[in-house]
Amino acid sequence: MPFVNIKITRDGATAEQKAQLIQGATQLLVDVLNKTPQTTVVVIEEVDTDNWGIGGETVTARRQQGK
Amino acid sequence: MPFVNIKITRDGATAEQKAQLIQGATQLLVDVLNKTPQTTVVVIEEVDTDNWGIGGETVTARRQQGK
Amino acid sequence: MPFVNIKITRDGATAEQKAQLIQGATQLLVDVLNKTPQTTVVVIEEVDTDNWGIGGETVTARRQQGK
Amino acid sequence: MPFVNIKITRDGATAEQKAQLIQGATQLLVDVLNKTPQTTVVVIEEVDTDNWGIGGETVTARRQQGK
Amino acid sequence: MPFVNIKITRDGATAEQKAQLIQGATQLLVDVLNKTPQTTVVVIEEVDTDNWGIGGETVTARRQQGK
Amino acid sequence: MPFVNIKITRDGATAEQKAQLIQGATQLLVDVLNKTPQTTVVVIEEVDTDNWGIGGETVTARRQQGK
Repeated sequence: MPFVNIKITRDGATAEQKAQLIQGATQLLVDVLNKTPQTTVVVIEEVDTDNWGIGGETVTARRQQGK
Repeated sequence: MPFVNIKITRDGATAEQKAQLIQGATQLLVDVLNKTPQTTVVVIEEVDTDNWGIGGETVTARRQQGK
Repeated sequence: MPFVNIKITRDGATAEQKAQLIQGATQLLVDVLNKTPQTTVVVIEEVDTDNWGIGGETVTARRQQGK
Repeated sequence: MPFVNIKITRDGATAEQKAQLIQGATQLLVDVLNKTPQTTVVVIEEVDTDNWGIGGETVTARRQQGK
Repeated sequence: MPFVNIKITRDGATAEQKAQLIQGATQLLVDVLNKTPQTTVVVIEEVDTDNWGIGGETVTARRQQGK
Repeated sequence: MPFVNIKITRDGATAEQKAQLIQGATQLLVDVLNKTPQTTVVVIEEVDTDNWGIGGETVTARRQQGK
């Protein structure tokens, strides 16, 4: 009964891509730790680039600088 | 000063229902562990059904299949 | 299929008390939002008082000051 | 490579203020623990006042009461 | 620069298995969303079975009942 | 009433350093958003290097390779 939380920047991930993340993360827990998929929960959070920072800067600012 | 984070699918929970969750979770910590309500924080996160998976599938897909 | 994360200071909560928190949080989601208990997950995290701060101070320091 | 998650009520924080939080939190980890800013991630989550509770009440309700 | 948090019960996962989870989750983000592995962070949290509940019961209690 | 969660690798941060993180993160919210320190909560989580991954590898493995 693992719980997986995936945080990504909000960049237009499609419903199909999110379904692939959920399927893949669930399968990973099955493959590595023999966990039961029926009680494995995956929650994806999409975060605005103004709200995500790395290197002390927002992702918005980094993209404007071409980083 | 507990911190409670409740993640649910975004399914039209009303402001009144969310207030009940906050009241109930706070009272639970008082009843079981004698915590101080004044510093007990409860945060509710509502997650789109495309972003929530169980059993390797999104909740969106499960509902389309009548699961 | 809600997910509830309860963070408390590590203060000797017993296994019985933690079971009560899990039972109570699950029932709360049933009562307020009619959620299915079988897929409701509750995770309790106990945090050392050196690692928990409020008002800009650690809980360890606050207790030494009788707060 | 620390990870910092800041949850605040959604109250009109500007992009500039959020950039300051990201810059400040990253610098704090550098100053106190000599962490590398390039792999320090900060994620800000803004939460509706209906979804944030303290003292057993939503922030929405508290503000209506002038608390 | 995704952030993945995997919570599992503390059940003796080996360092090798945890390395496989980290490798697999990182690769999943590369495969599905073309994310950069160098800034993808994965954090695994192992939780005591007394602190993990599903169906309103602790995992400890469920195992004693043979569930 | 912000909530700040700081995850770092378990590397011997002292109680004094953790107190500095708590003081600094609380002050940051005061300075940038004029938040009330009395209800600002900071929780620090220290994670074993076997359980923290970046670039698809555990921090344990990266350090053995001199990265």
